[in-house]
Amino acid sequence: MKKSYKELSPPQRILLGPGPSNVDPRVLKAMSMPLVGHLDPYFLEIMDEVMELLRYVFKTENRLTLPISGTGSAGMEACLVNLVGEGDEVVVGVNGFFGQRMSEIVKRCGGTPIEVKEPWGRALKAESVEKALANSNARVVAVVHAETSTGVLQPLKEISKLAKKYDALFLADTVTSLGGVDLKIDQYGVDISYSGSQKCLNCPPGLSPVTLNEKTVEFVKDREGKIQSWYLDLNLIEKYWEEGRVYHHTAPISMVYALREALRIVYEDGLEKRWAQHLKACDALIKGLNAMGLEILPTENNLPSLTAVKIPEGVTDINVRKTLLNDFNIEIGGGLGELKGKIWRTGLMGINACERNVILVLEALERALRKEGFPTKAGEGPAAAMEVFKE
Amino acid sequence: MKKSYKELSPPQRILLGPGPSNVDPRVLKAMSMPLVGHLDPYFLEIMDEVMELLRYVFKTENRLTLPISGTGSAGMEACLVNLVGEGDEVVVGVNGFFGQRMSEIVKRCGGTPIEVKEPWGRALKAESVEKALANSNARVVAVVHAETSTGVLQPLKEISKLAKKYDALFLADTVTSLGGVDLKIDQYGVDISYSGSQKCLNCPPGLSPVTLNEKTVEFVKDREGKIQSWYLDLNLIEKYWEEGRVYHHTAPISMVYALREALRIVYEDGLEKRWAQHLKACDALIKGLNAMGLEILPTENNLPSLTAVKIPEGVTDINVRKTLLNDFNIEIGGGLGELKGKIWRTGLMGINACERNVILVLEALERALRKEGFPTKAGEGPAAAMEVFKE
Repeated sequence: MKKSYKELSPPQRILLGPGPSNVDPRVLKAMSMPLVGHLDPYFLEIMDEVMELLRYVFKTENRLTLPISGTGSAGMEACLVNLVGEGDEVVVGVNGFFGQRMSEIVKRCGGTPIEVKEPWGRALKAESVEKALANSNARVVAVVHAETSTGVLQPLKEISKLAKKYDALFLADTVTSLGGVDLKIDQYGVDISYSGSQKCLNCPPGLSPVTLNEKTVEFVKDREGKIQSWYLDLNLIEKYWEEGRVYHHTAPISMVYALREALRIVYEDGLEKRWAQHLKACDALIKGLNAMGLEILPTENNLPSLTAVKIPEGVTDINVRKTLLNDFNIEIGGGLGELKGKIWRTGLMGINACERNVILVLEALERALRKEGFPTKAGEGPAAAMEVFKE
Repeated sequence: MKKSYKELSPPQRILLGPGPSNVDPRVLKAMSMPLVGHLDPYFLEIMDEVMELLRYVFKTENRLTLPISGTGSAGMEACLVNLVGEGDEVVVGVNGFFGQRMSEIVKRCGGTPIEVKEPWGRALKAESVEKALANSNARVVAVVHAETSTGVLQPLKEISKLAKKYDALFLADTVTSLGGVDLKIDQYGVDISYSGSQKCLNCPPGLSPVTLNEKTVEFVKDREGKIQSWYLDLNLIEKYWEEGRVYHHTAPISMVYALREALRIVYEDGLEKRWAQHLKACDALIKGLNAMGLEILPTENNLPSLTAVKIPEGVTDINVRKTLLNDFNIEIGGGLGELKGKIWRTGLMGINACERNVILVLEALERALRKEGFPTKAGEGPAAAMEVFKE
């Protein structure tokens, strides 16, 4: 007998991990609108609006600001593959999983990463970056603004100044900051950046917003040899998104619909208001965690959109996450790489950065920890968090 | 004053161009279901089902059969970048725009394309492929099964035998054939293939189903040096989709939901029934076009899912397409590359391969042509087409 496949019926999760985050129903609705062609006059208008709205959330005037047709990781590869060729040195900040990934991609582009390291959970030091720049021929410096693997927010301004001083382009990974955390591409002197659709923007994963200034556009155009990726060649992608509208690949229409709606919501809300909501929700979460006797990983520069919580000794990572998922329908994330089993990652991203979720995850965590024999006084975490929202 | 962005409200197009095609409402509904995490137990089940259903539509037992997180063009790049490295020769069939693109990507992988050419609108000749194989060190032969730019269907069996004879892997682009046109990956001896979600599967663009047999998996694993793309490295992607479920990138959850539903529809309909519907619709379309005095480009091996219609002398390409779009909400495609301005491309893909659309596009074309001064007798095209459906 032929196997039968049931109608799709996903559980109603509250997604408080490292991403994807929950998607606003307005975005789901926009995504399910009927398709038009990828060169339809209506779609061309939508593309223009998406570029405008992306400029708004990136706080940039960069003409070339558009979504790459792949996830955030495709955006990372797109930026690096357009900047880095055979033999090129690149200063890469490695203080977490995603910095490591950038370093790996630099190698695959034929480049040599000059790694500037800090322990996972710490921000990079500007003086280390300067040393690497002074002792190399690097023309690109790449750092992760919001390290999703450690919950660290990297200050950008100082490194940006150093990049200029040493005539290098400054690349920032803003996957987990865009739309939720203070980010001003132009003001902070970021030359090129990639992000993801599925974190603080509350759009499903599948697109990677990218922005680059004219200096970077020129750098890419003047590079020797062809970009080794055809799919991610920004010279070709530019011709489809900008004047000319030359066919490159078929744009993911529905995902672009979704991204437009997600951006429209941020635009209506106001970016600065969003940033403040993320700060407050994170502050409340941390106060709640501390009241329960839990510590967070970063000692400073913690990331408002994602909090790395140290797993207390004697508590089994997976048991707690299973209780959260099965009893509360809440997803939080485990650690990546060297932090596997050592931290949980709790994301409060976009519409998820609200009082309800903070209280809920603290309450759920408290119960799950008690099941594991970790002593928490009932209600102390949520109570401490609620104080923050009263302020 | 702040600019306001209107609610998304796309026109209701009938998409009879080269893709995307119209999407079944069931697929739009599935796509708009709430998200779960990319490592959620529920999503892991969905992934397994998507792989099973893809094996069904590809007619293969290949374990490694999964969607790449990008459009069909990303699938093309994924297959080539995993097979081709510095200095590798690849026999590439170039008889249209997409064959040309494969050749370009081979170069970007550091390889040397050995191009086997035919005029656009003709299928490749097996003897030319054999000559190229005999006179090169190529270990890969790449052809386009369904050339979307010319409406030619490439017979696969003979070339597949030649690939085996010369110990080369056989790669076929099945972007415009999968789910609509006779394709049996295992039986036809195709070693590796990529497709797109948005043509005969009626799923929005954004995913590229890929399948490869164990021989090809071994070939990729044994290759010297690292795959130059990290995002498209099948060794890494395999670990997420297969045993282990090791995080690589965040899967585009909603698109995977959509693809599952689209595949489920094909599975319920039956693949062979689909193929027959495409054949019949295409036959009717061509009979209608001929009755109106129009010719199609290929003299043989025409592709059931996409018909390339020669634009009659004295008729302006863009005027006709504008009439179709503005007066009838019908999209058809123009020519690509050297066929620009010389052909229209009419796709009848998946659910679009039906009597209603054939009649409608013929009727609309007739009126648009009359506006352009091209003499057609009212109703002759549709009448000839309807005869086919009566059979």
